[in-house]
Amino acid sequence: MKTPAQYVESLRRLNLEVYLLGERVKNPVDHPIIRPSLNSVAMTFQLAQEEEHQPLMTTSSHLSGEKINRFTAIHQSAQDLVAKVKMQRLLGQKTASCFQRCVGMDALNALYSTTFEIDRQYQTSYHSRFKEFLQRLQDEDLVVDGAMTDVKGDRSLRPGQQADPDLYLRIVERKNDGLVVRGAKAHQTGMVNSHEVVVMPTMALRDDEKDYAVSFAVPTDTKGLFFIYGRQSCDTRKLEGGTIDVGNHQYGGHEVLAIFDDVFVPWSRIFLCGETDFVGSLVERFAGYHRQSYGGCKVGVGDVLIGAASLAAEYNGTAKASHIVDKIIEMVHLNETLYSCGLACSAEGHPTAAGNFEIDMLLANVCKQNVTRFPYEMARLAEDIAGGLMVTMPSEKDLRHERTGPYIQKYLQGVASAPTEYRLRILRLIENLTLGTAAVGYRTESMHGAGPPQAQRIMIRRQADLEAKKNLARIIAGIK
Amino acid sequence: MKTPAQYVESLRRLNLEVYLLGERVKNPVDHPIIRPSLNSVAMTFQLAQEEEHQPLMTTSSHLSGEKINRFTAIHQSAQDLVAKVKMQRLLGQKTASCFQRCVGMDALNALYSTTFEIDRQYQTSYHSRFKEFLQRLQDEDLVVDGAMTDVKGDRSLRPGQQADPDLYLRIVERKNDGLVVRGAKAHQTGMVNSHEVVVMPTMALRDDEKDYAVSFAVPTDTKGLFFIYGRQSCDTRKLEGGTIDVGNHQYGGHEVLAIFDDVFVPWSRIFLCGETDFVGSLVERFAGYHRQSYGGCKVGVGDVLIGAASLAAEYNGTAKASHIVDKIIEMVHLNETLYSCGLACSAEGHPTAAGNFEIDMLLANVCKQNVTRFPYEMARLAEDIAGGLMVTMPSEKDLRHERTGPYIQKYLQGVASAPTEYRLRILRLIENLTLGTAAVGYRTESMHGAGPPQAQRIMIRRQADLEAKKNLARIIAGIK
Amino acid sequence: MKTPAQYVESLRRLNLEVYLLGERVKNPVDHPIIRPSLNSVAMTFQLAQEEEHQPLMTTSSHLSGEKINRFTAIHQSAQDLVAKVKMQRLLGQKTASCFQRCVGMDALNALYSTTFEIDRQYQTSYHSRFKEFLQRLQDEDLVVDGAMTDVKGDRSLRPGQQADPDLYLRIVERKNDGLVVRGAKAHQTGMVNSHEVVVMPTMALRDDEKDYAVSFAVPTDTKGLFFIYGRQSCDTRKLEGGTIDVGNHQYGGHEVLAIFDDVFVPWSRIFLCGETDFVGSLVERFAGYHRQSYGGCKVGVGDVLIGAASLAAEYNGTAKASHIVDKIIEMVHLNETLYSCGLACSAEGHPTAAGNFEIDMLLANVCKQNVTRFPYEMARLAEDIAGGLMVTMPSEKDLRHERTGPYIQKYLQGVASAPTEYRLRILRLIENLTLGTAAVGYRTESMHGAGPPQAQRIMIRRQADLEAKKNLARIIAGIK
Amino acid sequence: MKTPAQYVESLRRLNLEVYLLGERVKNPVDHPIIRPSLNSVAMTFQLAQEEEHQPLMTTSSHLSGEKINRFTAIHQSAQDLVAKVKMQRLLGQKTASCFQRCVGMDALNALYSTTFEIDRQYQTSYHSRFKEFLQRLQDEDLVVDGAMTDVKGDRSLRPGQQADPDLYLRIVERKNDGLVVRGAKAHQTGMVNSHEVVVMPTMALRDDEKDYAVSFAVPTDTKGLFFIYGRQSCDTRKLEGGTIDVGNHQYGGHEVLAIFDDVFVPWSRIFLCGETDFVGSLVERFAGYHRQSYGGCKVGVGDVLIGAASLAAEYNGTAKASHIVDKIIEMVHLNETLYSCGLACSAEGHPTAAGNFEIDMLLANVCKQNVTRFPYEMARLAEDIAGGLMVTMPSEKDLRHERTGPYIQKYLQGVASAPTEYRLRILRLIENLTLGTAAVGYRTESMHGAGPPQAQRIMIRRQADLEAKKNLARIIAGIK
Repeated sequence: MKTPAQYVESLRRLNLEVYLLGERVKNPVDHPIIRPSLNSVAMTFQLAQEEEHQPLMTTSSHLSGEKINRFTAIHQSAQDLVAKVKMQRLLGQKTASCFQRCVGMDALNALYSTTFEIDRQYQTSYHSRFKEFLQRLQDEDLVVDGAMTDVKGDRSLRPGQQADPDLYLRIVERKNDGLVVRGAKAHQTGMVNSHEVVVMPTMALRDDEKDYAVSFAVPTDTKGLFFIYGRQSCDTRKLEGGTIDVGNHQYGGHEVLAIFDDVFVPWSRIFLCGETDFVGSLVERFAGYHRQSYGGCKVGVGDVLIGAASLAAEYNGTAKASHIVDKIIEMVHLNETLYSCGLACSAEGHPTAAGNFEIDMLLANVCKQNVTRFPYEMARLAEDIAGGLMVTMPSEKDLRHERTGPYIQKYLQGVASAPTEYRLRILRLIENLTLGTAAVGYRTESMHGAGPPQAQRIMIRRQADLEAKKNLARIIAGIK
Repeated sequence: MKTPAQYVESLRRLNLEVYLLGERVKNPVDHPIIRPSLNSVAMTFQLAQEEEHQPLMTTSSHLSGEKINRFTAIHQSAQDLVAKVKMQRLLGQKTASCFQRCVGMDALNALYSTTFEIDRQYQTSYHSRFKEFLQRLQDEDLVVDGAMTDVKGDRSLRPGQQADPDLYLRIVERKNDGLVVRGAKAHQTGMVNSHEVVVMPTMALRDDEKDYAVSFAVPTDTKGLFFIYGRQSCDTRKLEGGTIDVGNHQYGGHEVLAIFDDVFVPWSRIFLCGETDFVGSLVERFAGYHRQSYGGCKVGVGDVLIGAASLAAEYNGTAKASHIVDKIIEMVHLNETLYSCGLACSAEGHPTAAGNFEIDMLLANVCKQNVTRFPYEMARLAEDIAGGLMVTMPSEKDLRHERTGPYIQKYLQGVASAPTEYRLRILRLIENLTLGTAAVGYRTESMHGAGPPQAQRIMIRRQADLEAKKNLARIIAGIK
Repeated sequence: MKTPAQYVESLRRLNLEVYLLGERVKNPVDHPIIRPSLNSVAMTFQLAQEEEHQPLMTTSSHLSGEKINRFTAIHQSAQDLVAKVKMQRLLGQKTASCFQRCVGMDALNALYSTTFEIDRQYQTSYHSRFKEFLQRLQDEDLVVDGAMTDVKGDRSLRPGQQADPDLYLRIVERKNDGLVVRGAKAHQTGMVNSHEVVVMPTMALRDDEKDYAVSFAVPTDTKGLFFIYGRQSCDTRKLEGGTIDVGNHQYGGHEVLAIFDDVFVPWSRIFLCGETDFVGSLVERFAGYHRQSYGGCKVGVGDVLIGAASLAAEYNGTAKASHIVDKIIEMVHLNETLYSCGLACSAEGHPTAAGNFEIDMLLANVCKQNVTRFPYEMARLAEDIAGGLMVTMPSEKDLRHERTGPYIQKYLQGVASAPTEYRLRILRLIENLTLGTAAVGYRTESMHGAGPPQAQRIMIRRQADLEAKKNLARIIAGIK
Repeated sequence: MKTPAQYVESLRRLNLEVYLLGERVKNPVDHPIIRPSLNSVAMTFQLAQEEEHQPLMTTSSHLSGEKINRFTAIHQSAQDLVAKVKMQRLLGQKTASCFQRCVGMDALNALYSTTFEIDRQYQTSYHSRFKEFLQRLQDEDLVVDGAMTDVKGDRSLRPGQQADPDLYLRIVERKNDGLVVRGAKAHQTGMVNSHEVVVMPTMALRDDEKDYAVSFAVPTDTKGLFFIYGRQSCDTRKLEGGTIDVGNHQYGGHEVLAIFDDVFVPWSRIFLCGETDFVGSLVERFAGYHRQSYGGCKVGVGDVLIGAASLAAEYNGTAKASHIVDKIIEMVHLNETLYSCGLACSAEGHPTAAGNFEIDMLLANVCKQNVTRFPYEMARLAEDIAGGLMVTMPSEKDLRHERTGPYIQKYLQGVASAPTEYRLRILRLIENLTLGTAAVGYRTESMHGAGPPQAQRIMIRRQADLEAKKNLARIIAGIK
């Protein structure tokens, strides 16, 4: 397994084409807006080095038997699924942001069982190809992005009905040695911090949509692939040089728009090509694993928000007010409800035909559906507890300024026992999580990551087995 | 293990003193208001006889190694805790009501570990006594009530401060061969259907409240013990002789006020006497197990309610309306969130010093807290889907009446494919669950059973480890 | 204006054909299940006699200039609309139930403007006929039921598509001197306590549905019209003879299924016949007025529930606990939000072409939409505050029983300063409002009365003027 | 009345001492971060010039009889209170932000009645002084800030108990010709855009806190008064020069920390000095008027958010999906509920002893309580409808960049009929309102402006008249 430093060095060697705020970024690894997101990924390497965290952070490869980072592992048991969620909560606690490495892990696990099943049906060899690819990831402890979401254009139209056929990533040329693909993947979490990207279709496809039915992996520095960095609320505060106004000065997340501008993919890295009948279940599985993930990572971030709100109450002198106590209890309650859902869909996991473990699909969708609601309410409660100062207080530069600094020190003091700066720091952290860069992850991505609320509702309906419930009711009501 | 018939016969032989609607009940087993509640308990015997349900319904005794009904078992693993929740969901589905036998199971498990710990501290012999008692329960497959809730009088006063010292059950005389106790236990679920009752104190006690610190077991036909039956909404519909208006004509629940009018208890059946320092944890454990239980039983009842609402929509001709579909999805979502909480606190269970398994306390309280909310919203949604006819439709007798029957048949027809009576039956079932006898169990007892919402909030606060969360926030915010 | 006694006498003289629990009711006025609902209507007469309430309860007729009961009035100003809501809150406070007379008032006001507009369009004479009818109602202070809701059969089919064409009330014969109608009206609130019934179509109709487009008035003792009484939760407690278990021993509401079995209606009492293009707006107006009504009556009932919950807390000794205080505040907050909506749609009222005043349609629908939610949450909070005893306590007969009475007195005492019976009475009142007969009105009818939630949502969408809002957004966003 | 241009010029002539991002701002009027907030205030002048808006925007002075801007008026009727709310909704619609001028209007109206009552009690002359001050404001159409919120230090301590006595603004010297005051006012909305500031105490005071009982007015360029500008989420996007990423490129709000560093106030401008017994009601009245205000301004901003969400759905091609339609309906419903509360507390207004009109206090607090909830839910729904692109899309500079621009145009196209840029603009507007600069006003200030949620709850409790409600319940329950 790599050390964090080795991970950073390995990324530095890649020569990615990244655009940010209208400029080509020379060295993404050291860019002040990108670096905090890299630090979050690096934490997945760091904790794997720490003995106390190894039971969660590492496991042994079912391919090689070697100790590997759990982020590269294929889940072998329900216990593995539970450990995954706990690992994610831990990382959320340590970074208070999106640490980006889950999406790849979830893609790998979905492809593992799906490629097995395609091969079984069509005597293809995707599964063995995929295992080779996987083993390299495990051996070299690589970060892999899982790219599913197409840009989709007009949502009321199918891929082939769009004014521009490229609005869903597609095969534009079939060659002897591989395929040429064109399209774009949106909302790509942490892709600039990844060595590899695994691409999958974005939704179930029909028979006549074979050009869109393609899954493959390429290195992130492949020819034709480039990245346009997404803006986050308050992103440029990271360029200002301080450590207060950013709220979280060490960690962050990022998303990019990834353009596949006629990228060539050799056959050895293609895991699905035209088997439209397996696309739906690939999408469902990836989404299912990723909906489980949110029952871990967002809970960890929620822990930090609860801690920050508790500190804000202390600094404000309100920690003992009964309504404040009650609001913190409510935050804990909501956060642990999310965690319960993450745990439950894991503990109820079951083996696939390929032997790896899959979450309970109904409960994983229930988990994510709650994630589209509770972090918003937790953010609201945190803003209530924090007080209005969170959005009206002066900048760090004003705090450091000769004329204004002493007045800020004097007048923004809360309880006498805590330095004013502590209070400002904690309020900025809450701002970061509720309005700032981390709100992108904690709020909007809780909403839309792994699919928007309606996507889960469709799955909940499908998985609910209403017929069985109707029969229960008929029996009780005395209906034959 | 007993058959349902053997269970009923064994109860019939008891000569309990029960009062109901102002009269002494001659034969509780055959009383039309009581019998449905007995049928629910009998279902715990019946399913244990059915092969497909034996993995959930039975286990082997850790005392005797014999196969026993899980309701008499001491949980030996987290898997046992998970199986308990699944068994409860199953029974909720089969009875659409409270099947009453959980409270005893939860009391036994709480006493098992607590008596062990008291003995370890004080070299008493409660644990071995308790195990003897337990083994008889297991061998004879007895139903045991767990009696905790005192009537409490003025809630702002401690037991000894009450105008009447008996408002908390207490020791009134200490004899050579045992104790004499006086007091009353309220909200006793299914006690008239039980062979034995295990009594516990109602809350943590202080050193000077030793008279109130007593736990013991007595048969339900003990001298001095008698029962006043609690009214339920719509209870007397069971006296009317039909099968529609009652909603659920086979199953039900009951609660009684149990009066201990100077009841003598021999030492062999006393499990705690004066050890006030262990009362708090006994109460917490019982409450914890019982808060877990709600993540199973109410989910099963919820399944019936969802099924009934789905059928109502079909009969009304609205099943395909998008808002109806969405409301049913929401019901499923809420129900499975409760289940997730029930599963999670079980899967995260841990062994006690005595060797039996205890739920995760934080998550069990989170589970119950959600139970105080979601069934209400599910009931609201079911009433929305059902339509107003649920509360305005004529009685079963009007349906059978010569003059009015044909008009009811004609005018209350929904979709042509379903008989009018089916529609009426399903609406009455929804009424039963949202307003009628079963609403007592599905709504009010979801609120107050195993403690009211505030009791869970106090526990959530205690278990939340806010200091650890504050430290996470300090590190992220850069506060030393 | 009639005194309450005169009202009762006038009803006694009617010989209505009413069926209840499988029997023809001899004398509805004196039947113990029906009488409380009559008492509620009588309160609309009584308060109109009391000087302090006359400003709300009475107004002068715009036809005759005489002082009339506001329930028979046509609103002449926005102030009248506001006074209507305040009158309804007052009556809710005095009866803690549905007082049934609003539906007629709302029907009269909707017909007043609609008949005017039909005449203007088609040179018919409905409006003058209607005014004659109205003046008699005002002069004789009659109670009129407004009957809109057809039984509707299969909701996915139009009236003429039903297997049975009578599932929507329709004209079956056109005669020289009038019409013969057949069908049934469901959920008829207080119809057995009314002198007259005004019938309207249940929804907007198409050109080819003219047989269903009919509005008229008939006396409730008209030949061919009869009533089947709807069951309410706990209705038969009123037959038991006590005053505690019923919760509210004086007042109640009722609903009936009204059968129009080939009823003849003379032309003088027909207000719409075949003008399908005016049916939609008649329905919307009636619904609009009635949705406003809920912002008054349910608020008054809510006041009683808040008062009862506050008393329960006092009797329990929990009135000062911060969480109890907070829950009562929340109940008040929700209740006053409903009231605000009732007031706002009234204060924003506007004149119709006929000169009478109509509520703001958007806000009236918003009002009712909140009524489908908040009473449920208020009921939940009341059950939380009340405690489980509300559903587990013994019957009134047990309280009066020689053996059990003293024990109930002793053990169900709360704070020493309040008699046990007071506590039981107040808990039974809360039960009545949340689970019992009054829950039919406070919960389910808050949901479905004046149309279910989805009906309001459709109207909210129509009234929202989204195009104007889009333009606001375009201007701000810099979109041409 | 001033034109917008005259207003801007008048401000330019003031030489305010303003600090922003660590620098003294040379010319606040032209600073790109401040200017949009000035534009919002200028809109209050512009609409008053437009004929169609004059009925809302202007009224006649009760002092001079001249036509004045309503923002400087003393409300003379309930109709005036209603007009105020409608004016505020209009301005919210036009600016999609806080237009800042309400706080002064609300302070003037609260002081008007309070000074009258102090004079009546103590034969002081505050009211005539205040009217002189007021008339100048009206004649010159000045913008006045109402400054209430002290910085408060440790919230668990009274003013005089703080480690630093200046944490509540106080009189530090009493001179012959006036007072010297010291302290700071936090969260000062729009103060840098104001000509004058009216200062009031922050909470009810005790007899021994007379030094803190002071109300007065000073020009904003008074010696000793200076301002430190508060940071808002995404504030520096306004420095980047584009019109897309800012979301709302024309309008905004601002808040400052205002330092009163030994400011001298002449007696002619002092409106309360030591009359601690009137401080509580001054605070309640100001808060009451301001809580009413939120039922107008936030509704107007909500209209823009609803419009933006509707457009986003159109551009995404999801406008017809039933769940999207339903979410927009829900947004409208919540928004109009807020408006209903704003209208209701106005329509129920009553005259004070001084003759001006005051809102219904209970309903105004209910109004604001809802404002602390619904905008959050509306923001959540808007984020749901918008889709994840809102937080992952590239910057405006990337859109204009030679290499990346064409790819963004191609791949972020939604429905073919709308330019990509329109879609990006509308998503940035939603971002602005939910996460960006306007979220400060739409979310956090909806929470804390005019007092945090708990402040309203305390007022709701006080105003609820629970004793009357208990009596209603007693009568119904048959309790003497």
